[in-house]
Amino acid sequence: MNIAERIAQLRALMAEKNIFAYIVPTADFHQSEYVGEHFKAREYITGFSGSYGTAVICQEDACLWTDGRYFFQAEKELEGTGVRLMKMFVGDTPSITEYLVDVVPSGSTVAFDGRVLSMGEGQEYENILSAKGITISYSEDLIDAIWQDRPSLSESPAFFLEEKYSGESIISKLNRVHKVMEENGATIHAIASLDDICWLLNVRGDDVDFFPLLLSYAIVKMDKVELYVDEKKMNNQILDEFKKANVVLHPYNDIYQDIQKLDASETILIDPMKMNYALYKNIPCKIVEAANPTILMKAMKNDIELDNIKSAHIKDGVAITKFMYWVKNRYDKEVITELSSIEKLTSLRAAQEGYIRDSFEPLCAYKDHAAMMHYSPSKKSDVQLKGGAFFLNDTGGGYYEGSTDITRTFVLGSVDQQMKKYFTAVVRGMMNLARAKFLYGCYGYNLDVLARQPIWSLDLDYQCGTGHGVGYLANVHEPPTGFRWYVVPSKNEHHKLEEGMVITDEPGIYEDGQFGIRIENEFIVRKGVKNKYGQFMYFETITFAPIDLDGIDPEEMSRSEREWLNNYHKEVYEKIGPHLTEEERTWLKEYTRPI
Amino acid sequence: MNIAERIAQLRALMAEKNIFAYIVPTADFHQSEYVGEHFKAREYITGFSGSYGTAVICQEDACLWTDGRYFFQAEKELEGTGVRLMKMFVGDTPSITEYLVDVVPSGSTVAFDGRVLSMGEGQEYENILSAKGITISYSEDLIDAIWQDRPSLSESPAFFLEEKYSGESIISKLNRVHKVMEENGATIHAIASLDDICWLLNVRGDDVDFFPLLLSYAIVKMDKVELYVDEKKMNNQILDEFKKANVVLHPYNDIYQDIQKLDASETILIDPMKMNYALYKNIPCKIVEAANPTILMKAMKNDIELDNIKSAHIKDGVAITKFMYWVKNRYDKEVITELSSIEKLTSLRAAQEGYIRDSFEPLCAYKDHAAMMHYSPSKKSDVQLKGGAFFLNDTGGGYYEGSTDITRTFVLGSVDQQMKKYFTAVVRGMMNLARAKFLYGCYGYNLDVLARQPIWSLDLDYQCGTGHGVGYLANVHEPPTGFRWYVVPSKNEHHKLEEGMVITDEPGIYEDGQFGIRIENEFIVRKGVKNKYGQFMYFETITFAPIDLDGIDPEEMSRSEREWLNNYHKEVYEKIGPHLTEEERTWLKEYTRPI
Repeated sequence: MNIAERIAQLRALMAEKNIFAYIVPTADFHQSEYVGEHFKAREYITGFSGSYGTAVICQEDACLWTDGRYFFQAEKELEGTGVRLMKMFVGDTPSITEYLVDVVPSGSTVAFDGRVLSMGEGQEYENILSAKGITISYSEDLIDAIWQDRPSLSESPAFFLEEKYSGESIISKLNRVHKVMEENGATIHAIASLDDICWLLNVRGDDVDFFPLLLSYAIVKMDKVELYVDEKKMNNQILDEFKKANVVLHPYNDIYQDIQKLDASETILIDPMKMNYALYKNIPCKIVEAANPTILMKAMKNDIELDNIKSAHIKDGVAITKFMYWVKNRYDKEVITELSSIEKLTSLRAAQEGYIRDSFEPLCAYKDHAAMMHYSPSKKSDVQLKGGAFFLNDTGGGYYEGSTDITRTFVLGSVDQQMKKYFTAVVRGMMNLARAKFLYGCYGYNLDVLARQPIWSLDLDYQCGTGHGVGYLANVHEPPTGFRWYVVPSKNEHHKLEEGMVITDEPGIYEDGQFGIRIENEFIVRKGVKNKYGQFMYFETITFAPIDLDGIDPEEMSRSEREWLNNYHKEVYEKIGPHLTEEERTWLKEYTRPI
Repeated sequence: MNIAERIAQLRALMAEKNIFAYIVPTADFHQSEYVGEHFKAREYITGFSGSYGTAVICQEDACLWTDGRYFFQAEKELEGTGVRLMKMFVGDTPSITEYLVDVVPSGSTVAFDGRVLSMGEGQEYENILSAKGITISYSEDLIDAIWQDRPSLSESPAFFLEEKYSGESIISKLNRVHKVMEENGATIHAIASLDDICWLLNVRGDDVDFFPLLLSYAIVKMDKVELYVDEKKMNNQILDEFKKANVVLHPYNDIYQDIQKLDASETILIDPMKMNYALYKNIPCKIVEAANPTILMKAMKNDIELDNIKSAHIKDGVAITKFMYWVKNRYDKEVITELSSIEKLTSLRAAQEGYIRDSFEPLCAYKDHAAMMHYSPSKKSDVQLKGGAFFLNDTGGGYYEGSTDITRTFVLGSVDQQMKKYFTAVVRGMMNLARAKFLYGCYGYNLDVLARQPIWSLDLDYQCGTGHGVGYLANVHEPPTGFRWYVVPSKNEHHKLEEGMVITDEPGIYEDGQFGIRIENEFIVRKGVKNKYGQFMYFETITFAPIDLDGIDPEEMSRSEREWLNNYHKEVYEKIGPHLTEEERTWLKEYTRPI
């Protein structure tokens, strides 16, 4: 069945049930960023495979909303499907709600599976559409009805993250959460977001693509935690640790019934951004809305986590440096394609101690493919690497010591002056944010311009955020902080920069049909001097791999920018060099030379 | 009567009337920034003479709230008065409301003159304090009762601003305002802010310190404008122009009665930030709250205004350059003091065609005086200028072609390496904001860091905004835009940067007891390239006067920074040189040399 046929089937079902518009987001029941195969309903119904997007199907129209990272890819993938691309945050593009208000007649019905929409989204639709006399129906998964060979839910085993990795016991974390519950006047706290549950219970799984998360819901009470999870996934170590912390297991799907049984006298703390609409609708007691307390706790890494993360980055830097050496020296001697390079890189990471899996979908994009910001090669799109072009690699490793996220754009052969100018602007943007010093209280939107200025100066823009928080062996996009110049409330990334947060810094330039350049380091938010002006803060860079000097025009850089780069490369050589072969090390010396 | 005695008198009166706390802001009946002598009640009761601050007097305590610009000055002026300084936005300092909630017992009364508090402030006190069972009394001016030699209201004549200066007729402006009223469903619009009325009616006056504004209130109806103003101030030209536009005059104070007579079926548009609490309390009809439409219209200057403003800046640059030449060459040959330098500078400005008055209180601060950010010399504080120090001059001229605001810090003799380092950091901050390029949609808080980064890098901060909008022969601090990294809602300066706005760029470094450095240029927000990424914007610098090269260490600057400065100085020489004497021009050549 091709996409058009799938949409036709869905439309027939919608007609039968008298549904005017059906909303299909990219989501599981937990508002996860990546989802397991079972949950890829939006890809099934539109063909668009990017990680971010929502489809709305009507009888006469079908639309897909996604953001700047995916415009190019979506245009390609939607070709011939009849689905229109709605470019979010660009010009006059209506939001999904604005679109629905415009096209859905009053008296008709808008439907979605209430488990795959967040509470906030569901309520927004409910409020705005009901004001226009439109009915909301949220109890049916229509995609399930037409998707005959739908993959089943994951059954992969879970594992425990020992305190030498997590840095804090379950009981200690629970104590901190209980305190925030009390401050909010709550007696119960329901958590539906997988990264929050995994962090709180020091457990990980393998249930969604890439991120090592465990499908589960938790109800945190003052004396115990009710955990809804497939018990078959648990091992003895987990069961022992859970027993110590009084974590009691229940079948995954029982939460929808159990939550209805809560006593009406209880007060439950829930995060409207992190709970699905159907679960929310089942809550029988008083609700206090607040961000999950675990979000900020998780983002402010402890010293053990930070030490581990730094050590994971050295391992990762070794793999990336070996990879860079191999690609740059072999692409013209053997057949290397985007896909075969991913295999090589994964094998180099896998050779590092403590490696578990890649931390997200590897984006290895040659030449014009890299202009699609988040292109990931398929067998169909795969191409061989050749000279005179950029090769962009945005990849990461998941280690017991944490997850990494790094982008390096390699020059294959040589590139022209214009390409070097752009490459240098991207490197300058990355550096200028990395070396910022600022007063405590700054948000990402205060500092974003430091990365963007060299690129805006060329009348160019990368049309997405500059960076995002990174989870510890969890989400590689972790709230509540990031760098973006405009506020996108749904992104939940506008918290002040706090000590111990780990964030990426990844400006880029993308020229349709030509090339894409992105350079990405991660850094830790650190406290600097405290004086009468306040608490100064700075970033400690933790990513170590060469930034390809073949792409840099030193004349485009200021002296202090060159100094920063030279110091950085000196550190790369010192930290990565000892783990390389003699041959690789000689090459690294050259590629970390002062300019 | 000294301050302590005045406070004692006020306390006696408060005790009589059973008032627990009395609030005295810095305000006239129009929320003006500078106020006429009649309105200087807060200075009368505390002795603090800065332009920004609010006093709260209780029986057992007396406090003054002001911001970072004035901490040092306030500390000095409050010495011995018994009034405590409350440093706004610093650490744990409570807001005024937090303080009142804390100290005022329920059942007692907090009082203020409702005409000198904004509607928003009054409502905030009303809402928060009444929730604690505290009564608000707003109908009496207690300061008036104890202030025996209080100056009377200004009676200075007004003048009309012809279209060659204003660029737009009253009728055209009224049409635009009517349109916004209609969009907001309003039939009437009351304006209490002087700059908005003066801009709308192309009239100016001389009723408040420095800013050429006219004490008045306006009620804009669809067919006429009711203007409440002292008719004696009007000349025939004004009366003729008002007749054409159907502007009808009424006695200044009649508005409080007249507004009560509005028909209950009307809908009135008012700006809660720009209307006093007493006037608001007298409105009998439906209210729509929105920013005064004139605020944004006024801030986005038209082409005639912009051309005039640029021409005013050349005249002002000539005065400043002549002043700089005189000060730097004469301070060691004759006795020049802070006050005598102001006389000289004012006379140089007055020699320029179209000069009306200084555009704000001249801040000429020698050596450690400049560490008090907004120090203005008095006979008591005046000192003679000597070598080996900085001399900061933040001044401006009011011309028919617009108002200017410029700061130059001069090096007298020579200064040490550390002072040069700081001076250069300030210049770099100013330049880096001035040369920014950005996408339409940016706010001041997105770009502020560009000016602040070189100063934050030294673990220093200037603890105030980086810049503010500038009015056309009106307020020199004009909403709704400015540069500040944190949002201060009451400042009304967080509008997107719009084409045609004129804004200052004035970072600084202030070292208590040692020196103060500030460099300030003004620029116009301009549209650049529009492409698929959006509308790019940039700043056109319009202030032209040398930045003292004696303070600059070229080694601290990047090549592109030096290029910007050299180009800027080239332009200064070309634009200002022709208006100087031969001797001055020779000197200017040297002080605009490439570095």
